[in-house]
Formats: sequence, C-alpha cells, structure tokens
Amino acid sequence: MNIALILAYDGTHYHGWQIQKNGISIQETLTAAAVRLLGQPVAISGVGRTDAGVHARRYVANFRADCTIPMPRLPLALNAQLPEDIAVSGAVVVPERFDARFDCTRKEYAYYLYPSRLRDPFLSGRAYRCPYPLDLGRMQEAAGYFVGRQDFAAVRSVGTPVKSTVRTIFHCEVEPCEENLIRIRVCGDGFLYNMVRAIAGTLTYVGCGKLAPADIRTILDAGERENAGPTLPACGLFMNRLWYEHTPALAPFSLDR
Amino acid sequence: MNIALILAYDGTHYHGWQIQKNGISIQETLTAAAVRLLGQPVAISGVGRTDAGVHARRYVANFRADCTIPMPRLPLALNAQLPEDIAVSGAVVVPERFDARFDCTRKEYAYYLYPSRLRDPFLSGRAYRCPYPLDLGRMQEAAGYFVGRQDFAAVRSVGTPVKSTVRTIFHCEVEPCEENLIRIRVCGDGFLYNMVRAIAGTLTYVGCGKLAPADIRTILDAGERENAGPTLPACGLFMNRLWYEHTPALAPFSLDR
Repeated sequence: MNIALILAYDGTHYHGWQIQKNGISIQETLTAAAVRLLGQPVAISGVGRTDAGVHARRYVANFRADCTIPMPRLPLALNAQLPEDIAVSGAVVVPERFDARFDCTRKEYAYYLYPSRLRDPFLSGRAYRCPYPLDLGRMQEAAGYFVGRQDFAAVRSVGTPVKSTVRTIFHCEVEPCEENLIRIRVCGDGFLYNMVRAIAGTLTYVGCGKLAPADIRTILDAGERENAGPTLPACGLFMNRLWYEHTPALAPFSLDR
Repeated sequence: MNIALILAYDGTHYHGWQIQKNGISIQETLTAAAVRLLGQPVAISGVGRTDAGVHARRYVANFRADCTIPMPRLPLALNAQLPEDIAVSGAVVVPERFDARFDCTRKEYAYYLYPSRLRDPFLSGRAYRCPYPLDLGRMQEAAGYFVGRQDFAAVRSVGTPVKSTVRTIFHCEVEPCEENLIRIRVCGDGFLYNMVRAIAGTLTYVGCGKLAPADIRTILDAGERENAGPTLPACGLFMNRLWYEHTPALAPFSLDR
C-alpha cells in the first residue's frame, strides 16, 4: 500500500530533508524509524527539499510498504522511534500513484523575523533577528508586487538548473505576530532555490528604507539577483501549509489551514 | 557601583540558575561572561533559584563592579560573551543596597501545557504535553481557589526547610494561547518549592475530571501533598514577570508587563 505521512519538524539540528553524505537529514531519520517499526526496507519521498536549518510545520512524505498497523495508530508508533524534533501527526492510505512531490498543487512558506538590537533566546534558531527597525506598512505594500505569474530570476540563488524561472505566487503577506515578531507568508505553485529567503531579504530592505516598495517591480523586471535584497538565514524559514487538491484522502488533515 | 541586569533564558540546557557542582548553570555562565567583559571578579545574585530546565522570560540579577561601559551598551557587550540561549536586555545602576532577591515584591510564573496525543516538535522543552483532553472552563473555575493569603503546604515539594508555608497569591489564571496551547499564570509574593508545578498538575487533574473545581478548597485546607495533583515537568515553567515596586530605576524596563 502507498502511505502518506503528515509530519512537522524543527530543522535546527538537521542537514535538511534530503539524505546526504555529510550530515544527518530528516529523510534519513524518518526512514530509519519506519524501517525499525515495519521491519522492511522503505523508500520515503518528500514534498520537497528543505535546506539545513529550515523547519516544517506541515510536511508530506509517502512510501510503499506492507503495513498491518492501522493508520490511526501509525503516527504514535512512528513517533516512538523518532527524536523529539520530528513528529508525525497523521498517516493515511493514498492511491497507488500518489507522489508527495508531484501531487502537491501549492505550497506556502512562512518566514519569521524580528527587528531588535538584542536577541531573544526563545526565538534562537526559529526566527531571524533583523538588527534595524522595520516599517511594516512599507513591507506590506512591497509584498504585493511578488503576487502573480512572473519571472522570479531576481530572487533566487543559482542551484540545480531549472527549465524556467517563471512561477505563480498566489499570495505574499506580511503580518505582525505576537510580541515583536513579523511573519511573511508566500504561497505559490512552485519555488526557485532560496526564493522565499531572497523575497524576505528584499522585503527587509524595503522595511528599513534601502529600497522603495515600487522598486520591487523594477527588480523583478530586470531579473538580476544583485538588485534584490540578501538571502536571509535558513533559521527563519518554515514550510507552513500544503495543498493536495486532487487527493481527497489528505483532506481530513486540513493541510491548507 | 551596583548594577541590575534584566535577562531572559531558555533553561533547557542548564542545571537551573544557581551555581552547582554537577552541571552548568545560568549563574555560572553569566558570571563568566561578566568576568571576561569587565576583567574583574564579580558575584552575581539572582531574583531566585530556578530548577533545571525551567526558563525565564524576565529575570533580574545584580552585582557590584567598577564598570566604565555605559549602561545602554552593557547588554550588547554581555550578549557577545553569552551563548544564544541567554540574553541580557537591560542594565541599570541601582542603589547600593539593592538586592535582586529581597527587593522583588511580586513574581509571576507561567506554566505552558498542551493537551494532545501527539507531540509538537516546536513545543519540545517549552511546554508540557498532557496526553488527555482538558476542560478549560473547569480549570479556570478551579484556579480561583488558589488566590489569596493561605497555606500552600498541599502544593509544594519538600525542599529547603521554610518557616511558614503561608503565601499570598494575587492572581491565578488559565488562558488559551495560540494553537492548542494553555497558559497558567500564577502571581504571588513568594513561592514554595515546586509550588507552581504542583498547582499546574492539580489544575490538569481538574481539567481531565480526576478532581472537581471545589476539591481545591478541601485539598488546600487539609494541607496534604498526596491529595493534590502531580508536579508537572520543569520544561513548561517560565519565570514570566517581576515587580520591584520600590526601585524606580527598574521601572523603564516594564518588568510587570
């Protein structure tokens, strides 16, 4: 059977989602837990790569296995094999052809940052501390320019080659959170490498006055990375919500809340 | 001069505030940072002990030293010497006789817990996961019984001998927080050993139906520890607010917010 897992993880101590040679990954840790529990080799695919230090409030992975454990019990059974910073919250049988990556129709990332001269020990590894004050209104105005189907070459790092740098962003919102925290949410049909972290860096440049909101238009049109703001650190980035519009089995988990 | 520091710390990786032989403490770490910065021995006193794994959103400590660094710069200078999980947010010169412990007139602790079968990786070490559902209304009703000047022998662990087990609780409130989180705030003129964690444990017994709200009255009157609920784990406990009503120098830091 093909099983989809819904999970969350604090990525601080991992070298990202994908199995790799030079450090422990979420994929490797989750695979080891499933192998121990099910007593058979499994190959787990995830909705996408996340970089070292990036977190996920919602993440979907799938694997094919013979599993006699009822689905409602699988999360607890897997959690017993997992470290504290990874937790499975749901498990469901999905159609044989389901693939966590290709069946995901939209993703939303959230980037958390707080403007402060002084660090907050409770936000360490969970948000980026921006050392200068930020104007939320300016950032909100600038965020609107990222919405739509357009070329995002200006806000990506060069990584794996891609056929096209055109993507659709459905929403890009800057919101105040509790205390001094600011959350930037970006939802799209796909993302280029480091795109959200570059958007967040560009928005902080607008927030501190180094760029004007309308400069975003010019920057995107020119498509040159050096015109935009910096790629902010991984610690503030969370995979936040996922949409699987053609997979009714995942609907009860309200991945798009 | 006598210097008061306002700080915050994530206590997860420390054996509490107080210097001790069997592990690294906040007091030791802060002292080492001050000694490195000021180049002189310092003796730092804190507002109170916190146990291993307990956190502080607000903590006040004081020490006497010759310090040529202007007070507004001292927090950043100390933070440069401190690990990520401890941060100084304010420094101020206080009267020579000021003592962080004896001049504190009230303290508020917050205890965070969430009812869930499944753990949340982002709350690991920061909140207690209660494995059964909780009725918030019952807990709120029960909390009222802890308010007032009374004997709290029923909700303390036997630790250092104390002259009296009578304390004044000014407020005890149970509030829903973001997501599934519940916050219990207890403010008093002093606390017995493990008192807040025992109050929190007793309130969860009310929340899950093992005790009725009115049982709190009987439990406090009888004064027997075994009638009350369990002492919940340290991870959920935060020193939250502090009042120094007779120390105007500390007022700008709004410790009682």
